[in-house]
Amino acid sequence: MATIAMKFGGTSVADLERIRHVASLVKREVERGNKVAVVVSAMAGETNKLVAWTNEAARPLVQDGSNRIPAAIPDQREYDVVVAAGEQVTCGLLAIALNAMGVKARSWLGWQVPIETSAMHGSARIEAVPAADMKARVAAGEVAVVAGFQGVAPGSRISTLGRGGSDTSAVAVAAGIGADRCDIYTDVDGVYTTDPRIVSKARRLEKISFEEMLEMASLGAKVLQTRSVEIAMLHRVPTRVLSTFTPDVGGTLLCDEEDIVEKKPVTGIAYSRDEAKITLHKIPDRPGVAAAIFGPLADSGVNVDMIVQNVSEDNKKTDLTFTVPRGDLAKALAALEKHASEIGYRDITHDSNVAKVSIIGIGMRTHAGVAQTMFSTLHDKGINIQVISTSEIKVSVLIAEEYVELAVRALHSAYELDAA
Amino acid sequence: MATIAMKFGGTSVADLERIRHVASLVKREVERGNKVAVVVSAMAGETNKLVAWTNEAARPLVQDGSNRIPAAIPDQREYDVVVAAGEQVTCGLLAIALNAMGVKARSWLGWQVPIETSAMHGSARIEAVPAADMKARVAAGEVAVVAGFQGVAPGSRISTLGRGGSDTSAVAVAAGIGADRCDIYTDVDGVYTTDPRIVSKARRLEKISFEEMLEMASLGAKVLQTRSVEIAMLHRVPTRVLSTFTPDVGGTLLCDEEDIVEKKPVTGIAYSRDEAKITLHKIPDRPGVAAAIFGPLADSGVNVDMIVQNVSEDNKKTDLTFTVPRGDLAKALAALEKHASEIGYRDITHDSNVAKVSIIGIGMRTHAGVAQTMFSTLHDKGINIQVISTSEIKVSVLIAEEYVELAVRALHSAYELDAA
Repeated sequence: MATIAMKFGGTSVADLERIRHVASLVKREVERGNKVAVVVSAMAGETNKLVAWTNEAARPLVQDGSNRIPAAIPDQREYDVVVAAGEQVTCGLLAIALNAMGVKARSWLGWQVPIETSAMHGSARIEAVPAADMKARVAAGEVAVVAGFQGVAPGSRISTLGRGGSDTSAVAVAAGIGADRCDIYTDVDGVYTTDPRIVSKARRLEKISFEEMLEMASLGAKVLQTRSVEIAMLHRVPTRVLSTFTPDVGGTLLCDEEDIVEKKPVTGIAYSRDEAKITLHKIPDRPGVAAAIFGPLADSGVNVDMIVQNVSEDNKKTDLTFTVPRGDLAKALAALEKHASEIGYRDITHDSNVAKVSIIGIGMRTHAGVAQTMFSTLHDKGINIQVISTSEIKVSVLIAEEYVELAVRALHSAYELDAA
Repeated sequence: MATIAMKFGGTSVADLERIRHVASLVKREVERGNKVAVVVSAMAGETNKLVAWTNEAARPLVQDGSNRIPAAIPDQREYDVVVAAGEQVTCGLLAIALNAMGVKARSWLGWQVPIETSAMHGSARIEAVPAADMKARVAAGEVAVVAGFQGVAPGSRISTLGRGGSDTSAVAVAAGIGADRCDIYTDVDGVYTTDPRIVSKARRLEKISFEEMLEMASLGAKVLQTRSVEIAMLHRVPTRVLSTFTPDVGGTLLCDEEDIVEKKPVTGIAYSRDEAKITLHKIPDRPGVAAAIFGPLADSGVNVDMIVQNVSEDNKKTDLTFTVPRGDLAKALAALEKHASEIGYRDITHDSNVAKVSIIGIGMRTHAGVAQTMFSTLHDKGINIQVISTSEIKVSVLIAEEYVELAVRALHSAYELDAA
């Protein structure tokens, strides 16, 4: 007997038939003697519909044919009120379906749990889950059906966590009720060595360490939201990723590094096309210039990722290259152009046809020559590396986007990750 | 300068264009210097969709082709969680549209106001609106956009008020913030002497007393929910009914009786097809028999309306006829048959092809012969009266349903209500 949190995403609750299937999976856990909290997303497509409505509501009354320009939501708090309705509907429906099957259940909205978040509406951060009441009721055998993706911000306003936030809700709820594990049900049957849509020989991982999963998620693997892995790691919540449709086969366990016996040099390969590269040419090579560049970008809310600065030609002028999320390119360029005189660059060039490919593995700490294998593999395929960044357990390279599939496949073979 | 509550129903907020039209009507009031709270329903069709989903979620997993039998929702509290999402979406969208037009506004969900209700989920009763915070913010010039139809029940659970409940929300919010008036915007331009779909010569009323409106609503006029009129009457909130689409023409003011100068004998004619008649034959004419009949019906949640008992033939046995809502007929018959031996009737007959036609008017108190005009008018048209019930300001008759239109038209002329 254990206390478990289960999480079902949008495709798992896409219609009433699937919601009742989910109810049967929950019922099975209850019949095994487990205490259950279940976290649900909105029905697939609902969130997109609600987001589109908020944009439409914010559009000026004057029709000027500029529908393609997304409107700014004047008050992000109201955006949250609208989009949080999607999860409210599914959590009520799942509670009804469970009750109808004879499983005692009740719904919990973010403000009822409560799932306390920061005031950063639209992408709020979970700060605490003081769920004493819910925890007691789960312990007493009642299934808690929790609306994912939402919380309550200071001032008792509804907040949302940003895309994929229901994973984070699930892990935070698991931590909040002291669950023995968190099962993330999704439309794939686990975490793979890389994206199986690109590499047909990708293998499902039985286990992956929290640290590796955090890098995989940050570097582009879409199976789990980064913040959910952070919380799982922080609270040491054993977390499984498994398929809603074939729950009895496979799955991947996120666990402590010590629980993984075989440590290959590279565990997985991630990639991201959400990249754009900016180069500032002929900037003065003096103290303070980095602050002059990255200050305005931070103020504009642009996250800078990889950075490389060339060695100065003549100790006076140099070039600086960095990457930003592709959707923020225009914003970044505007901020830089506004501060052109303080920075003092000669010109700016930019390129959106780039992608980042990363190798991840805790084995890197102990294996030598891991990065070299990456560079030589890419060189053999004629792929030019534009920028490199590394950390203790990953190496990322920026390459031309058209080479992404080729690079990922070549690296997957080179690190002996291909399935037999 | 006044403080006003405005209410917009489902057809008024049916899509984004209409929501923005509603925002422009609110903006106009703000520009006139008024302080505004605005109450909105769900987009037309949304509530029906959500209700259908709750029924589907509650259906047993075994498919037996019995889809036409509505499923019982095992826990009405979860029904409320699902259906309340509809109003949550519109109130957030309207707040966004207002902010985008430069009007400072924020949304308020039932639990945020709070609109405190009874625990009768699905048809909860508003008990208090201690909206001090909202009232202060409205007074400071911020538009309050309130989700109609919903409240918060004991235990911090979401409740809903039942169909048409947003009218009640609006009047309760008006009372809660001490508004000078409540404007109910709808798809008709006021309260008519009778249903204009039946009587083309129906006239819009400039004013109607709270008492008359309460009877009109109770007796079948669908323009306002009964409970909303009760609250308006209790708190003496001057309430206007007017059209969203032509807000500058017409409208009807609900007001105190003293504010109405011309008191005709009959103000309006209502009808209801939601009637079924039950007759118990040969029941013992002894004390306690009424309790034996109506006790089980009350226990089954069936509201009995008109009642007529025949004079006993031989001082021993009599017949009793009464009406119930048509949808409750099967439930009523089941309750009576279950208690057949205690009641001691010979047999039961019932008829669903009946309708109730009512004349309403405060003038009845001072005019003689008003009921007689009704009876003779119906007699002249060959319409048989099956049951009669009266109060100080109304006379209702039960007739065969096929005569409804004929009866309403004849009475409309007889009481000189036809438009010139």
